[in-house]
Amino acid sequence: MASSILRRSLLSQSQGFGTWFSPIKLSWKKTTFRACAASSELNHPIRSEASLSVGTHLIPHPNKVEKGGEDAFFVSSCGGVIIGVADGVSGWAEKNVDPALFSRELLYNAASLVRDEEVNYDPRMLLRKAHAATTSVGSATVILAMLDGNGILKIATVGDCGLRVVRKGQIVFSTFPQEHYFDCPYQLSSEPVGQTYLDAVVCSVELIEGDTIVMGSDGLFDNVFDHEIVSTMNSHSDDVAEAAKALASLAMDHAVDSKFDSPYSLEAKTRGFDVPLWRKVLGMKLTGGKLDDITVVVGRVISSQNGVLDEVQ
Amino acid sequence: MASSILRRSLLSQSQGFGTWFSPIKLSWKKTTFRACAASSELNHPIRSEASLSVGTHLIPHPNKVEKGGEDAFFVSSCGGVIIGVADGVSGWAEKNVDPALFSRELLYNAASLVRDEEVNYDPRMLLRKAHAATTSVGSATVILAMLDGNGILKIATVGDCGLRVVRKGQIVFSTFPQEHYFDCPYQLSSEPVGQTYLDAVVCSVELIEGDTIVMGSDGLFDNVFDHEIVSTMNSHSDDVAEAAKALASLAMDHAVDSKFDSPYSLEAKTRGFDVPLWRKVLGMKLTGGKLDDITVVVGRVISSQNGVLDEVQ
Repeated sequence: MASSILRRSLLSQSQGFGTWFSPIKLSWKKTTFRACAASSELNHPIRSEASLSVGTHLIPHPNKVEKGGEDAFFVSSCGGVIIGVADGVSGWAEKNVDPALFSRELLYNAASLVRDEEVNYDPRMLLRKAHAATTSVGSATVILAMLDGNGILKIATVGDCGLRVVRKGQIVFSTFPQEHYFDCPYQLSSEPVGQTYLDAVVCSVELIEGDTIVMGSDGLFDNVFDHEIVSTMNSHSDDVAEAAKALASLAMDHAVDSKFDSPYSLEAKTRGFDVPLWRKVLGMKLTGGKLDDITVVVGRVISSQNGVLDEVQ
Repeated sequence: MASSILRRSLLSQSQGFGTWFSPIKLSWKKTTFRACAASSELNHPIRSEASLSVGTHLIPHPNKVEKGGEDAFFVSSCGGVIIGVADGVSGWAEKNVDPALFSRELLYNAASLVRDEEVNYDPRMLLRKAHAATTSVGSATVILAMLDGNGILKIATVGDCGLRVVRKGQIVFSTFPQEHYFDCPYQLSSEPVGQTYLDAVVCSVELIEGDTIVMGSDGLFDNVFDHEIVSTMNSHSDDVAEAAKALASLAMDHAVDSKFDSPYSLEAKTRGFDVPLWRKVLGMKLTGGKLDDITVVVGRVISSQNGVLDEVQ
């Protein structure tokens, strides 16, 4: 099999789509996780125990509903609270490889390895070991976020899955996508030409009670602006499952709207893409969302009183 | 004195400025700093010793050249490599208070306290102690960044000073501004109504050899787009002092250009600001840069062989 960095999709200069199918919506009930640490040595204001209430929602691409799309995610409370999102690179389908296999196996391995003694609360090491254990052919963008008992969220990302932290009605922290060129993100791969754990951007942010973490595949961030993320979180401040569902639905509404000036189409224009001249003459412009699998994970930081590592459903 | 959160400046719907004075350009020669740590316990790819080559450039607001503007910065190699940038909030001038006093004293105190045993490589604690030691009246936005020997850059920020990390020709990490409303950033203050160290966003990023850190006051980021930061760094990959100077000069060129669609004017438009209707009829639009003090610090991560804490000029 030829080794290549596969573009996520064929870039089309016309973003209009006439029909879409009712998708299967995968939703996961709100779950609260706790991670704890002794606080006597702390001299900063973060509470001694960080809890996270998590809601998730996944809407497959309209053409991929039957197989559930090519995104994958997990949320685990083993060894701290860990969230992972991965997005299989669609270009593999042109080579008769199911793009969902790699992303799903990668995250299955990540979830299985969180308590491995070499991982030791290091998301880069977890990526390394999960990738090494993955045997499926394909490639994926991926983001892992680990929350410790001190309220520190440590993140490793390869590609264009993303994470935002919303605090008091504004975004205070955001990851940045990595790419080779437009629509061709960095990606972990079964092939040597892809990226490795060494290429991951590893960063962290100290969270406080009330913070909201929003993680997702590029299907979210290509279709929803940051200010829309903030207003959606503000409108659903009591229910993370509803918040995740609302965001995913908004992303899909924009994705199928050929007139919407999406983050994706705006970025395409800044990169020099445009409609052909004859379409311009007819008054057409490069607009529209980007049809894709959409995965959204919303986590709200909650303070709690006791010191027991616990999963509450 | 009445307590208030002061807006940085009066927002004008016309961004055109007819004249500006030749500024004093403050430039600091390239200096290389090293911070070291034993590597035997490390199981990740970051080298055992992180060096930083730093260049700086400050251009005061054209109306504030004689006093050197109201920004302040420092770079220190005591207790690791530490960089600070602060921007005095201009609104204090309306109350006959020199906005430069608070920002300069705040950073002077920060530079003096880096080795304090309670600081212990915690930029939030350093902000806390520096703020507590500051007696001048006024307020400022501020960002502190500390690089340890493992290549981890830990950052605390209050307000709209900023930091980018450029890696292999793209931005891989960025801070986010915090504000009360447009043009009124979070600010440490002599008055109780301002923010404190508790409001700081504290985050970190693992750096690798070849990374470029770009820090600055909002005078930089209001006038220069991220892609311009990247291209300027690419054009000056051998000399951090020239890189800082080029960026600051570009920011001032844009700041005085009433026709330039700056990040500032674009953001103003998304917030609903616009020229009056009669100007629209005449074909005028809300454009232009933002005249301000401009501080730029550029740091390039260099690997080195020995393990001695050293300052090289």
